[in-house]
Amino acid sequence: MTEVNHVWRLRKRPVGDICEGDLTYDEEPMPEPADEECLFRLNYLSLDATNRMWMSDVEQYMPPVSINAPMRGVVCGTVIQSKNSAFRKGDIVSGLGTWADYQIGTTETVSLLGDTGSVPVIDAFGTFAIAAPTAYFGLLEITKPKSGETVVISTAAGSVGSIVGQIAKIKGCHVVGLTGTDEKCKWITEELGFDEAINYKTEDLSKALERTCPNGIDVYFENVGGEILDTCLKHMNMFGRISVCGLIAHYNSSEEVPGPKNYPMILMNRLKVEGFIILDYMERYPEAIAAITQWMSEGKIKVQQDVVDGLENAVETVKKLYTGDNTGKLMVRVKDV
Amino acid sequence: MTEVNHVWRLRKRPVGDICEGDLTYDEEPMPEPADEECLFRLNYLSLDATNRMWMSDVEQYMPPVSINAPMRGVVCGTVIQSKNSAFRKGDIVSGLGTWADYQIGTTETVSLLGDTGSVPVIDAFGTFAIAAPTAYFGLLEITKPKSGETVVISTAAGSVGSIVGQIAKIKGCHVVGLTGTDEKCKWITEELGFDEAINYKTEDLSKALERTCPNGIDVYFENVGGEILDTCLKHMNMFGRISVCGLIAHYNSSEEVPGPKNYPMILMNRLKVEGFIILDYMERYPEAIAAITQWMSEGKIKVQQDVVDGLENAVETVKKLYTGDNTGKLMVRVKDV
Repeated sequence: MTEVNHVWRLRKRPVGDICEGDLTYDEEPMPEPADEECLFRLNYLSLDATNRMWMSDVEQYMPPVSINAPMRGVVCGTVIQSKNSAFRKGDIVSGLGTWADYQIGTTETVSLLGDTGSVPVIDAFGTFAIAAPTAYFGLLEITKPKSGETVVISTAAGSVGSIVGQIAKIKGCHVVGLTGTDEKCKWITEELGFDEAINYKTEDLSKALERTCPNGIDVYFENVGGEILDTCLKHMNMFGRISVCGLIAHYNSSEEVPGPKNYPMILMNRLKVEGFIILDYMERYPEAIAAITQWMSEGKIKVQQDVVDGLENAVETVKKLYTGDNTGKLMVRVKDV
Repeated sequence: MTEVNHVWRLRKRPVGDICEGDLTYDEEPMPEPADEECLFRLNYLSLDATNRMWMSDVEQYMPPVSINAPMRGVVCGTVIQSKNSAFRKGDIVSGLGTWADYQIGTTETVSLLGDTGSVPVIDAFGTFAIAAPTAYFGLLEITKPKSGETVVISTAAGSVGSIVGQIAKIKGCHVVGLTGTDEKCKWITEELGFDEAINYKTEDLSKALERTCPNGIDVYFENVGGEILDTCLKHMNMFGRISVCGLIAHYNSSEEVPGPKNYPMILMNRLKVEGFIILDYMERYPEAIAAITQWMSEGKIKVQQDVVDGLENAVETVKKLYTGDNTGKLMVRVKDV
């Protein structure tokens, strides 16, 4: 093949916000699959808050992307050549890949997306590759919310948070979402059925939590850390649970983010704070997908994809996750299936 | 009765270390029991790290001691007069009382110590009123240590920590204790059977943890918070558990103690951090007492009381908990049973 490949490579570890030159968009020769590998063309690239962490060398849950290596991402693509019997030309695969038009897959990095029925591939990938299973296990396994309890969710209009809130509603909870624009507040309450929304950028968070959580917080679904965590800690009820699913405030900061000064509340109120990484639940994906699919078909869960066209826009687009400029599942569409 | 009563009263909330005048030792008239109350004479006063917190007005797990009120403490005493059928003259009671020679008890504040068999009352009280049940539930319920795992304990030569380490040894763990003198290091390894001890005042804690925990930390039993917590967080293994039983570094500080800057390790390593207050386990005391008594009779658990005579010395003595000058269970003996 002679077609040119476009690849985003990490050239420097960003300090604070991602800057021009931290990643470069290069033209390269097409990769050739070796034995046991397949070559696939990228259809959709999932953009996730954790991408920023992979660019840095802080201690994290998997190795950071090496300098000069292609940027890592959760991908969905179409097999165009295969030297592995698990993949055939035309198969749709998803898994861990790179920010590149054409890339190599193995059975260790990608798997068949499977039949998505009447659901377009872009929606199936956007919802089920990460967001829905993360919301499902991160809420239900880690915090075990009970009917009548109050659940507070940070980045509530994001791909995970928006589903967490809807699952919590299904479980009979009082659900309060934190997000950064009035428009997103409106979306999560009016469209998704959250009981309350707080615009943490314009409201005094502590007062807003008092108003919207008259019975205190039983469950806090954590995606941000930093000051929002500290404020929520003050409002946690006895025996409250915190699912630490993400810490966006830490990923993008050029300075060390202070630890939560209200940490002693963990002792005083006998809180349980537990870290959660979806990779640990891969084997149980079918359970989450079945449940969420059922709830979607009943109209109890709505999902929204936030799609930007063109791999060349990946870096500009991923920044939206740290400025709060996305709503729902953020991804780049390279070429529809 | 005309006998004089001695009472420690809280006059000012200490700022940092407890200072002269924060509490006063007063002569007062004897209290008179009303209906449903008993009057008891103090035999032993348990001194516990949490006492310092009760003197302050930080948010805590029970109301702080009011200014000018008698200081609160866990007590053991002998009933000398009773207007409640649950208590008879001569009964030994223990529970929540005050730092006073003579005091009023009700069925809500104290209960019968019961038959201690051949065990002297001072030892039964010192071991079973708080320390042993706290160690038992705080370790086993919260962290569920498995054989072969590494357990690190702060304030390892204290009343709770010394028992935690011995229970962890019974469970087949590699046990490392942090304490503040070489003498106490020797005591917990040579007498109590800890595998390793670290003098955190003279050693570089991070290096010492690398040396003594070659496989990382699976369970951290937390009594201090602050920098020691931060350092331990760095060394926690994936799926590690932290039982937050105390935060001494926070109780006695005149300034706000920074939160743990390594908080993101909770996410990266999927840690579970859980607060623990022994009051929540009162109903299950018999289970802990039975187990610890059995282990003591088998020589698998040794306890040590650190006894100072004279109620007038209570304030000077309680300070030892914050300077690391006690070994084992610290208490004041007012009058032997």
